[in-house]
Amino acid sequence: MHRLSQLATQTTAATITAGHPLDPLSPSEIEHAASIVKSQMRDSSPYRFNLITLIEPPKAELLAWEASPSSVAKPPRRAEVVLVVRGKKGVTEGRVCLTGSKVLSWSEIEGVQPILTVDDLQKVEEIVRQDPEVIKQCKLIGVDNMSQVYCDPWTIGYDERWGAERRLQQAFLYFRAHQDDSQYSHPLDFTPIYDATEQKVIFIDIPPVRRPLSKLKNSNFNPQDISKTTGYRDVKPIDVSQPEGVNFKMTGRIMEWQGFRFHVGFNYREGIVLSQISFNDHGNQRNMFHRLSLVEMVVPYGNPEHPHQRKHAFDLGEYGAGLMTNPLSLGCDCKGVIHYLDAHFSDAEGKPLTVPNAVCIHEEDNGLLFKHSDFRDEFQTSIVTRATKLILSQIFTAANYEYCVYWIFHQDGTIQLEIKLTGILNTFPCNPGEDLHGWGTEVYPGTNAHNHQHLFSLRIHPAIDSQLHPGNSVAMVDAERSPFPPGHPENLHGNGFRPKRTVFNNPIEAMTDYDGNTSRTWDFFNPKSINQYSKKPASYKLVSRECPPLLPQPGGLVWNRAGFARHHMHVVPYVDGQLYPAGRFVCQTSGKPSRGLPEWIEQCGEKANINDTDVVAYHTFGLTHFPAPEDFPLMPAEPMTLLLRPRNFFLQNPALDVPPSHARTTTEAQAASGAKVVSLTDKVSQLAFNKSCCSK
Amino acid sequence: MHRLSQLATQTTAATITAGHPLDPLSPSEIEHAASIVKSQMRDSSPYRFNLITLIEPPKAELLAWEASPSSVAKPPRRAEVVLVVRGKKGVTEGRVCLTGSKVLSWSEIEGVQPILTVDDLQKVEEIVRQDPEVIKQCKLIGVDNMSQVYCDPWTIGYDERWGAERRLQQAFLYFRAHQDDSQYSHPLDFTPIYDATEQKVIFIDIPPVRRPLSKLKNSNFNPQDISKTTGYRDVKPIDVSQPEGVNFKMTGRIMEWQGFRFHVGFNYREGIVLSQISFNDHGNQRNMFHRLSLVEMVVPYGNPEHPHQRKHAFDLGEYGAGLMTNPLSLGCDCKGVIHYLDAHFSDAEGKPLTVPNAVCIHEEDNGLLFKHSDFRDEFQTSIVTRATKLILSQIFTAANYEYCVYWIFHQDGTIQLEIKLTGILNTFPCNPGEDLHGWGTEVYPGTNAHNHQHLFSLRIHPAIDSQLHPGNSVAMVDAERSPFPPGHPENLHGNGFRPKRTVFNNPIEAMTDYDGNTSRTWDFFNPKSINQYSKKPASYKLVSRECPPLLPQPGGLVWNRAGFARHHMHVVPYVDGQLYPAGRFVCQTSGKPSRGLPEWIEQCGEKANINDTDVVAYHTFGLTHFPAPEDFPLMPAEPMTLLLRPRNFFLQNPALDVPPSHARTTTEAQAASGAKVVSLTDKVSQLAFNKSCCSK
Repeated sequence: MHRLSQLATQTTAATITAGHPLDPLSPSEIEHAASIVKSQMRDSSPYRFNLITLIEPPKAELLAWEASPSSVAKPPRRAEVVLVVRGKKGVTEGRVCLTGSKVLSWSEIEGVQPILTVDDLQKVEEIVRQDPEVIKQCKLIGVDNMSQVYCDPWTIGYDERWGAERRLQQAFLYFRAHQDDSQYSHPLDFTPIYDATEQKVIFIDIPPVRRPLSKLKNSNFNPQDISKTTGYRDVKPIDVSQPEGVNFKMTGRIMEWQGFRFHVGFNYREGIVLSQISFNDHGNQRNMFHRLSLVEMVVPYGNPEHPHQRKHAFDLGEYGAGLMTNPLSLGCDCKGVIHYLDAHFSDAEGKPLTVPNAVCIHEEDNGLLFKHSDFRDEFQTSIVTRATKLILSQIFTAANYEYCVYWIFHQDGTIQLEIKLTGILNTFPCNPGEDLHGWGTEVYPGTNAHNHQHLFSLRIHPAIDSQLHPGNSVAMVDAERSPFPPGHPENLHGNGFRPKRTVFNNPIEAMTDYDGNTSRTWDFFNPKSINQYSKKPASYKLVSRECPPLLPQPGGLVWNRAGFARHHMHVVPYVDGQLYPAGRFVCQTSGKPSRGLPEWIEQCGEKANINDTDVVAYHTFGLTHFPAPEDFPLMPAEPMTLLLRPRNFFLQNPALDVPPSHARTTTEAQAASGAKVVSLTDKVSQLAFNKSCCSK
Repeated sequence: MHRLSQLATQTTAATITAGHPLDPLSPSEIEHAASIVKSQMRDSSPYRFNLITLIEPPKAELLAWEASPSSVAKPPRRAEVVLVVRGKKGVTEGRVCLTGSKVLSWSEIEGVQPILTVDDLQKVEEIVRQDPEVIKQCKLIGVDNMSQVYCDPWTIGYDERWGAERRLQQAFLYFRAHQDDSQYSHPLDFTPIYDATEQKVIFIDIPPVRRPLSKLKNSNFNPQDISKTTGYRDVKPIDVSQPEGVNFKMTGRIMEWQGFRFHVGFNYREGIVLSQISFNDHGNQRNMFHRLSLVEMVVPYGNPEHPHQRKHAFDLGEYGAGLMTNPLSLGCDCKGVIHYLDAHFSDAEGKPLTVPNAVCIHEEDNGLLFKHSDFRDEFQTSIVTRATKLILSQIFTAANYEYCVYWIFHQDGTIQLEIKLTGILNTFPCNPGEDLHGWGTEVYPGTNAHNHQHLFSLRIHPAIDSQLHPGNSVAMVDAERSPFPPGHPENLHGNGFRPKRTVFNNPIEAMTDYDGNTSRTWDFFNPKSINQYSKKPASYKLVSRECPPLLPQPGGLVWNRAGFARHHMHVVPYVDGQLYPAGRFVCQTSGKPSRGLPEWIEQCGEKANINDTDVVAYHTFGLTHFPAPEDFPLMPAEPMTLLLRPRNFFLQNPALDVPPSHARTTTEAQAASGAKVVSLTDKVSQLAFNKSCCSK
């Protein structure tokens, strides 16, 4: 296997040794964890490794060591190991100490199933093709050659007929005349249910109305087909270079860039994890966030007909943004001057696997950082400063969809998360002239792409100025009109408006939703760190406008399972190890009771204080997608973004010291031809056409 | 003067001659228009030219000529000429035919004032400095040297004490110890009212509580100050080059790029105007929009204390996005391979003036256009295609603020408008410890930046497939849950949702607002052009999420004057010459009655059909800004964006024929080392560090 090259322990251990406690497990650590478990399991039933991953040290332990690295012991390395054991229902989980080479705990958890691995997914297609009942159903709708049948295995989600007792997948089937055809243009109308333990089809969901295989040519995007049909257009290259090198520095996995400093982690589930984000504010290292990551997403599809309710993948909790991450390639996924980080996982035997180039790190020009010109001398007095941004990115494939995740750092202190959705629509067949009842769109004849949402959960663990005072708080900020109507002496002309700040005291109050009508934002702030100028607390403001509500209804399957998506903001007290808002194990959860966030909030309730303490916020954002033919056969990337912006954190624009591309003061402008112009203008930009009509 | 170089007619006429009917007036045409008016005015009172601009031909006239250029006469060139005539109240406006060298109409309009020109603005500072009463007030608050007093003259907006009889400005005063100081850090607390005709101060608004001049050092951003204080950080250059040249072609002012074709206009008020946007859909030239432009904006400030209610600039209607546009410079405002267009206006004597490089046109790499990888062979089967975008941009200065306007075209058919706000906050002094009542933030000691909004009006004149059928319609699209609760047989698991489409029949129905709760979008569509696959009409969808409500209250001054900002969407029947939603002349309108959109809608009302006809939409979007110290003394650019996306317009992703950077089919992947990999990977991208830890 190309992607997952099996590495010998010795060759790679060296690159990881010096390690930070938050560094992902190295290949040798993965192997070591497996060996500890193997020694424990030697007399037991057959089993496979599902997962070997770092257990991050408890926060207090980490901070104590960092405060006095010479006197406090470095936190030991610990790993979580999940096994699929023949004959056991549910999850077998061990926690091991790598430093001490011992098992810390061992548990068997019923009512859930472990995450699906690529290994799990790859077996289904082969078995489904050989199943006699599947072969019969294929014949019925016009498919004779089973080698032309392809399968996307999804976890079953939850189906009340089987619950969580067996490890089940639903097999979405497609016909391809040729293996190089795009997969999703000829979906089949029935859905086998596959038992991963028994490795067989145990049931087939057959719709009441059958939809025979379309005879239409496949809708393709591969170069052979494009060359034969429209051909390729001419596009001239745009080259990006950094002749003097990059502005960032990495020491191990600690990134330093333009004042920012943070640790870059990565795991099977969240993918990129950014920890201990701080900023060098004129020599003063100020904390911003303890940890930022995407922790969950749910993709509910909107067709209420059976069995489409089961299409609501939790792409992080059920498949893993790390496990599905793509190896990236220079000049393709990433342009410019790139630094890559590899990712390491375990295979079913506990051997380390590597995804090369899992994380791409690079900079881009970001247009204007700021500009001002004076109208008095017709813009001769002017300053223009261009922005550079730092981007940490990964791309993961969730069967049909691709998610491109960009963590972007800006010189003005802003942290941006941009996500681009691309890949291919999940499809179901439709008969000619069939009424789709609005639940989907016929994007190609016979191909129905169902409405769906992509709802992400961003986990925000603020640590605003925690080096001064550890407590943080969260407030909701709404634009509010003056309470007085026009004509009233306090608001004579009716123009008064201001921000209304609601500080959350407990997790119940904090369950809030975006309100475009008040331009609602949320502030993460340190109530004890007051800006000397504005007298307001040092804050990071979450500006996130793409916040649709969860469209599946209260009490329904998705609502129950995806408790985190019921509100756009949740805030809870920090608890070590509490990371995943749809539950630690998501596969085949029933949603009764709801795992993760609803559980935590019910446990701590109104009694729990979240004001001026160690708090964690979960923010739901995303989009609702009503497909159109333009999204097919391959979807142009749809971007969505949110910003964390410093407000009342700095005493002034923190990027004033970025060198301008052009600056001329009034005095210099008046000196006319003898003007002293400070200018870091690039020497490479040029005019497109050498025509006299273009002024220099 | 450097920017506004006065050009001799002969030298520039040649470059403009062949012209399109929508081309802006050339310098020689401006001179010609002035000469026609001068001959008319020869026996009259002293006057100055306020404006000489193109009157675009009536739409029917333009389309008739375009349909049969050989048999139908080219529309004559017409110009609007606005004069400020001594002794006349209001506006004197002539409409002249340049082709026929004659005056078409002549009118005097009372109750309004013409737009402010840079010429108008530049006089005020000098006169204010010499006014004895201003000098007295300055002394009172601690300013002795009048050469250190600077003034931003704004139109008075509207003040009921004077109405629109006289041409008035309000003079916002600032102290600068040195002319190279940033202007806005030491505002003065009183506001002279200036009469532009009499060229004198006629009144001073003095606040009940005085705020003496702050003794604090100015907060500066000029290189001399930065060098003396923090010094500059090291930032390494990022260079962009296009060794084979650009992908766009301009014939006159007709742009062709990646299938798109449109005309690039420019005028004093809207700045960039994009007309007759069409797309070559596999040889079929399909219309999309007849015209797109920003037509107005209002910036209401939220402090209700007198006279701050007058701070609500209409930056387009009162000052002009064209008149205030910056000359741009290569490698500073614009990076890469650039094509510039100049802009031409008239001076007070009717002589042509040129702003060189007013419009920047260039391309940028836009990251991934689309990607898909197959999990079966661990992402070996993969296609990665990068995007190129075309950007037409301008930057205009509205006294303190800079607005950077980017019209962006994407290969997938999307048209994006991005606006970046930068420049400097408008400020007012505050005393030490003063309670600002939430109406503003102390961004620097003694400097109060008031809350404000930036609300833009985007005029959208759709022409979706108008080459087939001329009528267009507009619908509001809301995500809607199934009407049946979970448990109901039609929605057993509660997951049903779909788009609800409300087609507008008249302008009253069309007055609608953004609703984040339903992910509301608006579709511009051709009801007679039905997508062959989806059976839905060919549409462009407006995706715009930054839509705060107008915060000034109904019945107040801003509400009355900025009628267009009361709703996020207005749709009216197309009327020749109807462009400006706050009125043709905005200065000193009282808002009683409201000019522009409210007037038009009242006139046509519920009787007017807007379904399947020639319609124009006005979309209000923007942001609410609660300042913070990070915005000072120079504000990091704050971006905001909206998209017009083709939906059911194309039969498939229109960018499938963009050459991929990397593509490998399953068959090629299986051929292993002998893989035939189609790859247009760039040759310039490279690794940041030549370390063995980075996989190739």
